[in-house]
Amino acid sequence: MKGLLSVQGIKCGGIHCGIKKKNKDLAIIYSSVPCEWSGVWTKNRVKAASIIVNKKRLKDKVQAVVINSGIANSGTGLRGILDAKKMCKITASALNIPEFSVLCASTGKIGELLPMERIAKGIKRLAKKIDKGVSQDATSAIMTTDTKPKESEADLGDCKIAGIAKGAGMIAPNMATMLGFIVTDAQIERDVLRSMLKDVVNQTFNRITIDGDTSTNDMVVLLSNGLAGPPDLAKFKDGLFSVCADLARKIVEDAEGGTKIVRVVVSEAKSIKMAEKVASAVANSNLTKSALYGGSPPPGRILCACGYSGARINPKKIDIWLNQFLVVKDGAVIKFSESRVKSSLASSEIEIKIDLRRGKESVAFLTCDLSPEYVKINAE
Amino acid sequence: MKGLLSVQGIKCGGIHCGIKKKNKDLAIIYSSVPCEWSGVWTKNRVKAASIIVNKKRLKDKVQAVVINSGIANSGTGLRGILDAKKMCKITASALNIPEFSVLCASTGKIGELLPMERIAKGIKRLAKKIDKGVSQDATSAIMTTDTKPKESEADLGDCKIAGIAKGAGMIAPNMATMLGFIVTDAQIERDVLRSMLKDVVNQTFNRITIDGDTSTNDMVVLLSNGLAGPPDLAKFKDGLFSVCADLARKIVEDAEGGTKIVRVVVSEAKSIKMAEKVASAVANSNLTKSALYGGSPPPGRILCACGYSGARINPKKIDIWLNQFLVVKDGAVIKFSESRVKSSLASSEIEIKIDLRRGKESVAFLTCDLSPEYVKINAE
Repeated sequence: MKGLLSVQGIKCGGIHCGIKKKNKDLAIIYSSVPCEWSGVWTKNRVKAASIIVNKKRLKDKVQAVVINSGIANSGTGLRGILDAKKMCKITASALNIPEFSVLCASTGKIGELLPMERIAKGIKRLAKKIDKGVSQDATSAIMTTDTKPKESEADLGDCKIAGIAKGAGMIAPNMATMLGFIVTDAQIERDVLRSMLKDVVNQTFNRITIDGDTSTNDMVVLLSNGLAGPPDLAKFKDGLFSVCADLARKIVEDAEGGTKIVRVVVSEAKSIKMAEKVASAVANSNLTKSALYGGSPPPGRILCACGYSGARINPKKIDIWLNQFLVVKDGAVIKFSESRVKSSLASSEIEIKIDLRRGKESVAFLTCDLSPEYVKINAE
Repeated sequence: MKGLLSVQGIKCGGIHCGIKKKNKDLAIIYSSVPCEWSGVWTKNRVKAASIIVNKKRLKDKVQAVVINSGIANSGTGLRGILDAKKMCKITASALNIPEFSVLCASTGKIGELLPMERIAKGIKRLAKKIDKGVSQDATSAIMTTDTKPKESEADLGDCKIAGIAKGAGMIAPNMATMLGFIVTDAQIERDVLRSMLKDVVNQTFNRITIDGDTSTNDMVVLLSNGLAGPPDLAKFKDGLFSVCADLARKIVEDAEGGTKIVRVVVSEAKSIKMAEKVASAVANSNLTKSALYGGSPPPGRILCACGYSGARINPKKIDIWLNQFLVVKDGAVIKFSESRVKSSLASSEIEIKIDLRRGKESVAFLTCDLSPEYVKINAE
């Protein structure tokens, strides 16, 4: 896997600069030429400094992203914003590009200030050896509680797409920072890039989290340096979707304290929005997810979550399957073989399928179970 | 404590009829004369049979409530509704009162049918000895994962109010059935009773749960038999508030797997609704509650929850106190004595105070911390 380096003109790397005690904590992604770009940002009203700073670059072309892990630089007031700007400025000067062509991102503990001296030294050191950098170092350097680096690539023939991501606390998705950085050598206009990224993120990263409930630092950024020329747009969008879906899935697979992947499919909804409401309520039900951890079939808990989802469902028309077993028919829990369903729940991936019989729309959400380990991790 | 029996004309009792393996599981509350009454119901679109049946009694006077624990009779379709009606009918005939003057309630596992034969026998047995019943038996008979019975009384001089409640899974308040039964000998008109109960429940039971996210069985019922004549209404409302607040607090104190009480106070909000949104987001933040379990100060997590609460807060104006210590000022986490705050978090009751500096309204929510024990209880 060449990771981000599979894309023409892209260089990247990651080092330990001293924000964390050990492990890499500083990454740079660099393009040899300026990029059209697009970002999707947290909807949290409390925004980290990096979000505030990046949003001022919307009219500029971008040539580099600097990312630190360990400290989120959020809840840090004006000082935090000045520090984020400084990170960009130091990176720009080290790479010899304009200040406004650098984006920044942070992830880690909220409410602490960045150790700017160490970061400044780190950026200079990293920039010097960026030509020899490898993608895996960048991927490792953006990790926090992640246990595995997350990369994905797509070779579309006429162009390439590659991405890296971090994010592990999926059980409380609303609080876990999710970062994604995607690069391509396809040449795409800014407006097309924006609408495409928004669309794809809505169907991938946003279906592993709950609508609007995001951390203060969340962002997904897509850079297009155009070195491969204009692509087949439909094929490109499919490729972007597959990279984002792959990264999103890897985030869930690495969820804090999760032991199983849970796929929640809601079908025959009147609208996508209705399907999303139901899927997200079920995917976020602590009681359902505790039961799945314990291997007990929770048909009633799922039915209950459908009811409080806020969607205008008809309770008498809900059918629910656990894996291949029908457990709720016409809104009532039916008799099912407890032992067969239980043994199917022992697998590492579980599907909850909910049929609303109200229309033709469907969505799939990915989540995981809730284990005592989750609480232990977050109590520290 | 005479419990419900402190109110003139009220009789009650509880027995084991065989829904649970052991422990009491069937209760009756009876008034010697018909009562004006009011109820507050779950907002879940999937409603248990008991809710559907009770809502048909709105125009009738009520003289008894029959309650079972162990099985929620929810997600049980038409058969469930017929069973709930049957419970009322058998109770009516055993007490020699009209069928439409009996309310019913159930709590326990969703998706299972009631063992009607055992319940029928139980009701007859219980009705026969209702004259000698004690309040504590009724209170015990409505418990599920509760570890303590929950009762409260208020003697207002001109009348009395008494109530019992159950409900333990407060960490996922949206799924835990909450039942409350309150009786009074005050004589109050139906409309007054209704608006008063709604008001008081909104400020007590609904501030230990999230708005709209309720189980399929939740209800709070207030019966007024009038034997003490008309009360001082203002004093009565205060008394009702104190009984409901006391019961609500007892529910939180007995929360599944909770080890500490957490009081979330939001002040200087532009509206009550804004204050409620912020308080409920913080009170339901798994990350905040895991940190409190572990005894770590979570200023950033609290700030983040304020941001995704959906309330139109100004992030730059938020101040946050943990117990008496200021930890966030003007939306930024400030330096505080980690050791002093930590040692204050070791107490059994913690206060999070959030000042929004947007107006004059304030609310207080009660919740508890999130322990690994919670997941273990709900995995079974």
